[in-house]
Amino acid sequence: MAIIVQKYGGSSVANPEKIKKVAEKIVDTYKNGNKVVAVVSAMGKTTDNLIHLAKQIANIPPAREMDLLLSTGEIISVALVCMAIESLGYQAEGLPGFLAGIKTDSNHTKARIRTIDIRRIIKELKNGKIVVVAGFQGISPEESITTLGRGGSDLTAIAIAGAIKAERCEIYTDVPGVFTADPNIVPEARIIPIISYKEMLEMASAGAKVMQSRAVEFAQKYHIPFVVKSTFADNGGTMVTEVDLKEGAVVSSVTLDEKQSKITFFRVPDKPGVAAKIFGALGKENINVDVIVQNVSIQGYTDLSFTVNSTECERAFEISKNIGKDLGCENITSDSDIAKITIIGLGMMNHPGVAARMFKALADAGINIEMISTSEIKISCIVKKKDGQKALKVVHKEFIE
Amino acid sequence: MAIIVQKYGGSSVANPEKIKKVAEKIVDTYKNGNKVVAVVSAMGKTTDNLIHLAKQIANIPPAREMDLLLSTGEIISVALVCMAIESLGYQAEGLPGFLAGIKTDSNHTKARIRTIDIRRIIKELKNGKIVVVAGFQGISPEESITTLGRGGSDLTAIAIAGAIKAERCEIYTDVPGVFTADPNIVPEARIIPIISYKEMLEMASAGAKVMQSRAVEFAQKYHIPFVVKSTFADNGGTMVTEVDLKEGAVVSSVTLDEKQSKITFFRVPDKPGVAAKIFGALGKENINVDVIVQNVSIQGYTDLSFTVNSTECERAFEISKNIGKDLGCENITSDSDIAKITIIGLGMMNHPGVAARMFKALADAGINIEMISTSEIKISCIVKKKDGQKALKVVHKEFIE
Repeated sequence: MAIIVQKYGGSSVANPEKIKKVAEKIVDTYKNGNKVVAVVSAMGKTTDNLIHLAKQIANIPPAREMDLLLSTGEIISVALVCMAIESLGYQAEGLPGFLAGIKTDSNHTKARIRTIDIRRIIKELKNGKIVVVAGFQGISPEESITTLGRGGSDLTAIAIAGAIKAERCEIYTDVPGVFTADPNIVPEARIIPIISYKEMLEMASAGAKVMQSRAVEFAQKYHIPFVVKSTFADNGGTMVTEVDLKEGAVVSSVTLDEKQSKITFFRVPDKPGVAAKIFGALGKENINVDVIVQNVSIQGYTDLSFTVNSTECERAFEISKNIGKDLGCENITSDSDIAKITIIGLGMMNHPGVAARMFKALADAGINIEMISTSEIKISCIVKKKDGQKALKVVHKEFIE
Repeated sequence: MAIIVQKYGGSSVANPEKIKKVAEKIVDTYKNGNKVVAVVSAMGKTTDNLIHLAKQIANIPPAREMDLLLSTGEIISVALVCMAIESLGYQAEGLPGFLAGIKTDSNHTKARIRTIDIRRIIKELKNGKIVVVAGFQGISPEESITTLGRGGSDLTAIAIAGAIKAERCEIYTDVPGVFTADPNIVPEARIIPIISYKEMLEMASAGAKVMQSRAVEFAQKYHIPFVVKSTFADNGGTMVTEVDLKEGAVVSSVTLDEKQSKITFFRVPDKPGVAAKIFGALGKENINVDVIVQNVSIQGYTDLSFTVNSTECERAFEISKNIGKDLGCENITSDSDIAKITIIGLGMMNHPGVAARMFKALADAGINIEMISTSEIKISCIVKKKDGQKALKVVHKEFIE
């Protein structure tokens, strides 16, 4: 008998009505002859409410207590989902993370799963029960409750699926799958039926809001295929798995990230150690640098630009100004009037000329490219913010429609 | 170094401001050179809100899932109290019931504590930490979360105090101690400084809303003295412990219970098995009968009256009518226009004539007694409801003022 792991996010269990619907979905899967483990997140606003409570007690609530507090949100969902399943006449067993055997390190608020002791889950499945597990949480070696950080429930589901060798892992969310581009901007966008872990990871870092990287990385590392699909619609869905290079699309998706800012150092002395100094300082402050471009050196000076997430731009700019002074740099500017357009595709590795096609498509549409960054299966271009959506459409048309 | 166990109820941790005050109180105790274990209940309305959620999913939510759901309320309090303690610069360790080693039977929603594995609590105390434990909950042999039923947090505190051989157990509540009578009705009522477990138990069953019987029974059984006092006032407090008979007050307290109803069987045939039939049927339906009075038999017939809690009166009346028919009883009535006035005192056992003094005091005040019930350390009289408060005053005056 096949075991299916299903994960339902916060919006899927946001209120009692939705919880009843989720229970029906779980029971349907069970009635089709499967054993089911459902992993659930906290109801819509629960986590925010708990954080609000904590902030009234302490400005910076301690991490360990925060984990204990937030872990209750998923447990509430578990209890309610179990009640809904039992109302339908089926037996359920609700397990907080620690009872489900989720053992993590002690890194509170962003713990990593170390092992899963699957005995309890297997025992309940053997008893014919539907097992409902609280996502996002585990227990540390010191026996304190931990949480896994953002996207933690996806991670719980994928890790359990791997540990119990589930036949299928289904990540239910509020979109019907992974799209070739944001359908709100590109009406021609369509659902990608199958995609590789690598491409999913590039999409997450390119600004697509599908899944947190950690869960996908985990799935990739342990070879756990999963499906992303809508909770409340039956069709669609994207399978994320290993994809043979030969079968990979040249370009599987196009993403637009409008939340990037550019910082430019003008006339930096071009000598060894300059880049290390700048990016070392930013790294020490945990600021993620994305695209980096350095011009050719003219008379011993060069211009250097890089992009950061807009939320971190102000901090990055302050740090940059300090370093700029030390380096004797002429001027430093920051610019949030940019957008990043990225094409991702496993097939790119075997198809030369993809970059040229992208640049030409943008040029034909009169869009100027300010910066370019590439990896094995990805090409990103920075353009003016006003050109972002147009760029998305023309590139999508060029490669996908 | 002495260990002190403190219990803070739902009204003491009802909001962030109160939680901060509770943390200060805990830290003060710690600063005075004690090791402290604090047991906390769910914040004011949390439990009600969770019950409301459950009722939207299932009319009669299953007990085991209800326990899992409700247990989150106390865990939230634990996390917040720990945050408040750490904000004051002290180290706290927050433990849900199962991590605190509270092992119960599998009787969901009203589980009994079987054992307490004190190793974790002791370890944290040895590390110099203040330990905060979620009241009202434990874990069953099947590793499901259980709750202890009403008054469960008191029970958790008393049981932990017994298990770790605490020097003192303090039950903090919203009243400054146990009063000789309800001070809202009798302004002359005063706090009883020391009282026996037995008297506390009689008070609970006489309708005083101080503490649930189960926690007091547990304390009595394992000889665990405790103090009942106000969270937000420094003085007062009632010590509950073994009291030597000779030191016991003749009457330590007077209680009034206005939530009793009387059911009367008129002209029941007076033959063996009648009482067994009536009270057996009520017992089977879990209806608690309090005072029972049977008149002398006249010509083979008798009248029989008993009181029940008013909330159960309607059910008891229905059952009584059915049995009455079988018995060929003339008429059955129910009457909620009554009140029960009770005097309780350990010293009563050694002082004859106490009952007579009580009856005279009531008679002198023109109050008619409808029914009487006595035990070793208690005398209860049923009077008309309109006479209840007056009766409380005159009896309090007679014995206590």
